[in-house]
Amino acid sequence: MFGYIASMKAKPGKRDEVVALLVGGVENLRQHGCESYVVATSATDDDTIWVTEVWRSEEDHAASLELPETRKAIGEAMPLLTGEFTGQATSIAGGLGV
Amino acid sequence: MFGYIASMKAKPGKRDEVVALLVGGVENLRQHGCESYVVATSATDDDTIWVTEVWRSEEDHAASLELPETRKAIGEAMPLLTGEFTGQATSIAGGLGV
Repeated sequence: MFGYIASMKAKPGKRDEVVALLVGGVENLRQHGCESYVVATSATDDDTIWVTEVWRSEEDHAASLELPETRKAIGEAMPLLTGEFTGQATSIAGGLGV
Repeated sequence: MFGYIASMKAKPGKRDEVVALLVGGVENLRQHGCESYVVATSATDDDTIWVTEVWRSEEDHAASLELPETRKAIGEAMPLLTGEFTGQATSIAGGLGV
């Protein structure tokens, strides 16, 4: 399984709006090979959002970014973000809930 | 819900041994308030391990570190690690699988 750990920074006051966009489309992802998609806010600053994802495969993750609903959500979120992103691809070894 | 995103670096050749220690005790965590505990290896280097966790509360997470089985696993893993850690506490907003 493929994992992805991402962070993004919202413009001041826009964090919760971005979180709502990210959480909103999540049920749709299951049928596209997503096993887990956790949206969280930083406990140490007011603007950073973390998304931790588990996918059946790297290809499923890549394909999900091209879905019309994903592209729409990205388009809506981008103006609310500063442009500061981090991303780390992983290979899932195991655990609880995967 | 409380989240934690951690990374640690294994000494050369020791990564899989650390992963086995981390994955080994995971079923026990559920009864202590752990909702998800995903162990993954970096896709971009040979030594980094990522652990992404979801807990019922921050107190449950803190208490889990004092469990005898957790302390035993930490004691076994520490000599296999370089001492380079990162950690980010989060507040879970929602998603798939939480």
